Amino acid sequence: MNASQKMAKVVFQPSGRRGTFPVGTPVLDAARSLGVYVESVCGGRGICGRCQISVSEGTFAKEGIVSSDAHLGGATEIETRYRSLRDMAASRRLSCQATIEGDLVVDIPTEAQMNRQVVRKRAENVTVEVNSAVQLVRVVVDEPDMENPRGDADRLLDRLKAKTGESALAIEPRLLSTVQSVLRTGNWSVTAAIWQDDAAPPVVVAIWPGAKYTVYGLAVDIGSTTIAAHLCDLVSGRTVTSAGTSNPQIRFGEDLMSRVSYVQMNPQRLPDLTRTVREAINALVGKLVADVGAERGDILDTVFVGNPIMHHLFLGIDPTELGGAPFALAVSDAVQSRAADLDLELNTGARVYVLPCIAGHVGADAAAATLAVQPHEAEPLTLLVDIGTNAEIILGDRHRLLAASSPTGPAFEGAEISCGQRAAPGAIERIRIDPQTLEPRFKVIGVDQWSDEEGFAEAVEAVGVTGICGSGIIEAVAELFLAGVLTQDGLIDGSAASRSHRIVQAGRTFAYHVTDHTTPITIRQTDIRSIQLAKAALYAGVKLLQDKLGGAPIERIRLAGAFGSYIDTKYAMVLGLIPDCDLDQVASVGNAAGTGARIALINRGKRREIERVVREIEKIETAMEPRFQEHFVNAMALPNKVDPFTELRKTVPLPAPRDAEAVDGSDGAGSGRRRRRRA
Amino acid sequence: MNASQKMAKVVFQPSGRRGTFPVGTPVLDAARSLGVYVESVCGGRGICGRCQISVSEGTFAKEGIVSSDAHLGGATEIETRYRSLRDMAASRRLSCQATIEGDLVVDIPTEAQMNRQVVRKRAENVTVEVNSAVQLVRVVVDEPDMENPRGDADRLLDRLKAKTGESALAIEPRLLSTVQSVLRTGNWSVTAAIWQDDAAPPVVVAIWPGAKYTVYGLAVDIGSTTIAAHLCDLVSGRTVTSAGTSNPQIRFGEDLMSRVSYVQMNPQRLPDLTRTVREAINALVGKLVADVGAERGDILDTVFVGNPIMHHLFLGIDPTELGGAPFALAVSDAVQSRAADLDLELNTGARVYVLPCIAGHVGADAAAATLAVQPHEAEPLTLLVDIGTNAEIILGDRHRLLAASSPTGPAFEGAEISCGQRAAPGAIERIRIDPQTLEPRFKVIGVDQWSDEEGFAEAVEAVGVTGICGSGIIEAVAELFLAGVLTQDGLIDGSAASRSHRIVQAGRTFAYHVTDHTTPITIRQTDIRSIQLAKAALYAGVKLLQDKLGGAPIERIRLAGAFGSYIDTKYAMVLGLIPDCDLDQVASVGNAAGTGARIALINRGKRREIERVVREIEKIETAMEPRFQEHFVNAMALPNKVDPFTELRKTVPLPAPRDAEAVDGSDGAGSGRRRRRRA
Repeated sequence: MNASQKMAKVVFQPSGRRGTFPVGTPVLDAARSLGVYVESVCGGRGICGRCQISVSEGTFAKEGIVSSDAHLGGATEIETRYRSLRDMAASRRLSCQATIEGDLVVDIPTEAQMNRQVVRKRAENVTVEVNSAVQLVRVVVDEPDMENPRGDADRLLDRLKAKTGESALAIEPRLLSTVQSVLRTGNWSVTAAIWQDDAAPPVVVAIWPGAKYTVYGLAVDIGSTTIAAHLCDLVSGRTVTSAGTSNPQIRFGEDLMSRVSYVQMNPQRLPDLTRTVREAINALVGKLVADVGAERGDILDTVFVGNPIMHHLFLGIDPTELGGAPFALAVSDAVQSRAADLDLELNTGARVYVLPCIAGHVGADAAAATLAVQPHEAEPLTLLVDIGTNAEIILGDRHRLLAASSPTGPAFEGAEISCGQRAAPGAIERIRIDPQTLEPRFKVIGVDQWSDEEGFAEAVEAVGVTGICGSGIIEAVAELFLAGVLTQDGLIDGSAASRSHRIVQAGRTFAYHVTDHTTPITIRQTDIRSIQLAKAALYAGVKLLQDKLGGAPIERIRLAGAFGSYIDTKYAMVLGLIPDCDLDQVASVGNAAGTGARIALINRGKRREIERVVREIEKIETAMEPRFQEHFVNAMALPNKVDPFTELRKTVPLPAPRDAEAVDGSDGAGSGRRRRRRA
Repeated sequence: MNASQKMAKVVFQPSGRRGTFPVGTPVLDAARSLGVYVESVCGGRGICGRCQISVSEGTFAKEGIVSSDAHLGGATEIETRYRSLRDMAASRRLSCQATIEGDLVVDIPTEAQMNRQVVRKRAENVTVEVNSAVQLVRVVVDEPDMENPRGDADRLLDRLKAKTGESALAIEPRLLSTVQSVLRTGNWSVTAAIWQDDAAPPVVVAIWPGAKYTVYGLAVDIGSTTIAAHLCDLVSGRTVTSAGTSNPQIRFGEDLMSRVSYVQMNPQRLPDLTRTVREAINALVGKLVADVGAERGDILDTVFVGNPIMHHLFLGIDPTELGGAPFALAVSDAVQSRAADLDLELNTGARVYVLPCIAGHVGADAAAATLAVQPHEAEPLTLLVDIGTNAEIILGDRHRLLAASSPTGPAFEGAEISCGQRAAPGAIERIRIDPQTLEPRFKVIGVDQWSDEEGFAEAVEAVGVTGICGSGIIEAVAELFLAGVLTQDGLIDGSAASRSHRIVQAGRTFAYHVTDHTTPITIRQTDIRSIQLAKAALYAGVKLLQDKLGGAPIERIRLAGAFGSYIDTKYAMVLGLIPDCDLDQVASVGNAAGTGARIALINRGKRREIERVVREIEKIETAMEPRFQEHFVNAMALPNKVDPFTELRKTVPLPAPRDAEAVDGSDGAGSGRRRRRRA
């Protein structure tokens, strides 16, 4: 590479992979060199059209990039021919033809990664009494009578009032234009959907001629990475189908704060972020109703949850205030709206219920998880943690409940890890390290076998071994610690290099080399530091809440969210990511936010319950607590500098603490003490 | 005119004038030959562009016309040049250039008749306690606090709840996207508009930074001919300005039933009729707010009234069911909606209240008139009549109230009268006939002087004497009766021809010649028959209701509507259009429907009052009453065959009844007896 050659920064979304490339590099080549999956069937000849990409324009503060369509090279003759023959959207380019001419944020369209996405949110079984906001009532209406010229809609209401006993029942004015044809089509027999929630009188929101037996509700968890939606039968309460998709807002910023800063820098693009997530939901709904042979018009009620920034963007609210202290929410109480007002393509009478947010960093998703886990009904002291780029922490029991958030950063999601990647095929998700030989065995997403099992070599060909995801890095660090490779302070002991060729020196620190099946995968000292920082932030937050409750031991731990579902709770505790507890009392609860959304969808009494609980939760702002720093520093150690983890030690023999002084290893960033001595 | 020449039928709207013309006639010439006003400054040279027209396409059953753009001749070179130089809408044509090539409904655009329209609806003074649905409340909101992370909207609501005592107060979700900037712009001081009506909890529908002292409401009476709108200060209750415009739906049919049949024949055009009236209202609002230097966003509440067909079309409801028995209303109870849902360009939080309809032919306008006149609070037996193409009749007192409608037809509006025209400049609106000489003196709209006063000849040059409007024909017939020219049966006595050259023979009947100042204006026997049929229908309806109440004498009469405002009550009674009553107890109440709308706008308690009254009104379907025919036949006579009109005779000497046999006059349509004798 010529030293004088001009370089450009490129970020690929939704993977978030980034790199610097010589100007003139084809976008497809850049993607491949980063292990970013872009489909291509024709081998870059501009024929198959599968490698389409688009550019997200704007200022991306976090990346220090101003991305523009103009930073792609002009259309080649081949691309121009393709465009003239096929139907390619104006905003799209063929990545095999388009070259990098300046800084870019490149968006890989969803259809190009459809087969690659592993949606790690699924519906757990929920048992809750059915008491939905929608009730189907069938009545036969009197025919019109000149002697008693009451309107068709009024006679319908009269019958419905008589049947339900709801004297204040009203009808949506929108239905007045169809009531006459519905009544006549049904030969004066109709089914009405009556919606009621909270204090307002019940309202007829939909009518059908004759009989109608099934209507659906939609429960959606809008995550910053993934949107998960569940279709529930509002009569039986059953979840009939679920689907997920990646959150297309990722093209405006990979993590939450990037999206907030994108809106801050490009305020006129706020409607794009809102539209983009609503369109993704509408597309998901299309998939859900097709699954069960229903129609969009059969969906009458919806419940949405999400972290505060997703919550605001979905509702069309500028999230800028959430980007800095005092992190003011536009609204924290539950929001009720009409689905049509949010551009959702459902029955035009469908309603929206959004769960309350607990605080500026503890959103409606945490409220929903609380509703699913029910710590406010529990006798044992329960810790509920939803780990994302922010860990949302709920701690308490039926007497008292506290909430806080801790800024764990994106390390648990595989970002800021040198070989990290999102949980997708090709990622190492499980790893075991032999304490004697230090040889690893691992499991890759998309392959059934472990790496030391028969058939692995053949099976892994299809996906490769492209990186290590969050659960993989947790296990790797914990296994290295258990194998004695790491000190309690998290340093890779260089002396282990004599035991195994896998411990390699990398500058002034050491690294552990896992494999180089597809690309070299190595756990570096900086990766371990990132994990330590993240887990220390989480642990310090938990400790603060525990302090508020007088330091009582935690009796039950529930890990929510995708990450919480996939990590091994033992390794999480070995790392000191979660506090000491009887391991039998530690469990993943899957997508508890989605579960809570479904509960609130099926039973409107649960909406009142969570509104009350959220009002009563004590909100703790960790940044303002003087002891946070002390807890944080102690929690940097594995599993902890001061907490004994006696419950854990009953089942897992932890290495005896060793002083960092005694080992041959160092990290460039952290240990000031060592650096001073070397100077 | 060549007998073999092809002819085409043309109807001009909004005047409703129609004629048959040779194919090839320029549209402007056809308009002028019918006295239809189309502006033209350049003398038909295709330069000024003032004579633009457009074609209303579709099937017009009543006229027996299928109108199409294709029935206009192609663009001349002159028109093509005009279009290339000026900005003329694609749908427009120059009427001086376009020729008639087939049947047409031609629409004269509003701007071309602006200076000609006399809007006969004006705001009467109303005194009613102010209790509007909108309340302005100013509060100072706590700044956000990390220790208590309640949302901005929630803290605003907390303050508003504390100040108003309304614990169930909610906020429109739409406001959540602006609440943060409004609070910060106002430095945490805001004014909220709280809307509450009926059973639902109050809602914050608008917020402004800092102080806001004035918000407005809009009261609209949608007539089939004219739309009248009033802007009221919701704080003081004062009507600050009013404006009117012609109802542009007239292009789809001049009278109500033509519009219904237009929708029946062209169901896909229903949205056009709805859009057209809403656009006219939006334009009126623009005028009203400009008048007082306000903004559309200052309008927060609205009340609409109209007859059932206008009511349905405004709400986007197909009025087809109202076109035939059993005349089923889609909805009769009051309708509440959001203004934005009806495409009204007001504050996005503005609400709509539509008064209830009484029956399929007795609409929300009659309900509003009832609210204005208050017969349900009256001790004397009160008759309230709103005369249009349907007369809406309310009769009763504080003990009992009845309602009915009678199909009077369009005669009172000057239609179906040979020289009839709408009330517009050039129309004879008053007439006196000397009982000795039978010479007329008359007054023309747009001219201050009577025809026998000095200066009339000069003043009338500007407008001409183009026809006779409803109030004019009433007076003409009554004066002819009082002058002894008409028999009690309404026949023009041919023997009067010897007394005056104004009585002329016309075929087998006689006519009274008024003037031929601009065009010959003559009252024909058929015109008198039309008036008799109309007034007999109205009178028979009143009599039926009177029968239901045991025949008690009517003690008070209130005439509502434009026609009711302009007719002389004495002549109306001489004609037997209204029943006998002390003339001092007969009064016009102007646009009582508009007044009622304003009352309901200013005081929401009045909404509940009229809802209750309408529920309790006894609705009588005149067509189903056996005695209707008998009353109708008696009411054909002047003033009535059987009713003595003793109160009227106290002040007006009526001619003694004469037998039709004794006079030399006949009408082709009516008197079978005479015809049989002649045969």
